[in-house]
Amino acid sequence: MKTFRSKHGEELAANIAFQITEVARLYRTRFDREMQALRLGRAHWWLISFLVYFEGSTQQELAEVMDIGKAGLGKLVDRLESEGLVRRFADPADRRLNRVRLTPKAKPIATQIRHTSEAIVGRSISGLTGTELATLNALLDEIKRKLAVP
Amino acid sequence: MKTFRSKHGEELAANIAFQITEVARLYRTRFDREMQALRLGRAHWWLISFLVYFEGSTQQELAEVMDIGKAGLGKLVDRLESEGLVRRFADPADRRLNRVRLTPKAKPIATQIRHTSEAIVGRSISGLTGTELATLNALLDEIKRKLAVP
Repeated sequence: MKTFRSKHGEELAANIAFQITEVARLYRTRFDREMQALRLGRAHWWLISFLVYFEGSTQQELAEVMDIGKAGLGKLVDRLESEGLVRRFADPADRRLNRVRLTPKAKPIATQIRHTSEAIVGRSISGLTGTELATLNALLDEIKRKLAVP
Repeated sequence: MKTFRSKHGEELAANIAFQITEVARLYRTRFDREMQALRLGRAHWWLISFLVYFEGSTQQELAEVMDIGKAGLGKLVDRLESEGLVRRFADPADRRLNRVRLTPKAKPIATQIRHTSEAIVGRSISGLTGTELATLNALLDEIKRKLAVP
């Protein structure tokens, strides 16, 4: 474990997890608010957003990134499937894997979600240069790499 | 809205919210796992952690940072109060504000939580220099500032 000797460093070290958690929460809150215009609750816009950017994710992956149980994710997919917005399909290479994709019917809502997210994220990073954004991404990658160690 | 012309930049811009959300989730998962040794569920360790670092927060502030409703937070504080771990007190300057603090009985568990979080966060940032950590913090501050604009 790295030790930060300065008081300032110690505070930063203690607070960086809060800081990251807080920014994630602010994004969530902002998305919630702007997605209301599309009449979409959190679980809906979140799942559709993931599928917009990570098409064909497995149910397991979706349950993990959304931090909900497998059962909860299953119910959510059921609901969106009954609305005709998503469809399950077996992985061609491993038929035990259930993947999920958006249907053609979901296209207009997916486009609106994409525009809304791009607007939110674009505004949020409008104070950063391209280099700063790349730095931020790389530093977060490094933290992810350490957090992934069992 | 800032436009990133390069393909790489566009991807980063689209993905930075996912990236931050994902790191927050990895922290949460890691905390969940290590707090199990202290027999603490998520709501418990989270609330106690906030009070360790932000002693005397108001119920409103806690409900907000924990992203749970006022009623949910109230019930959680009730539970921890009945276990003798926290105590509500009226703000001396504004008696309508309910603040929450840890009791002396909570001290041993608060110390363990502090050690566990410092270990988790310390390992997670062990690949970063002090300067990189400060940069990360400043870039996140800038995003927070933009997300706070109504």
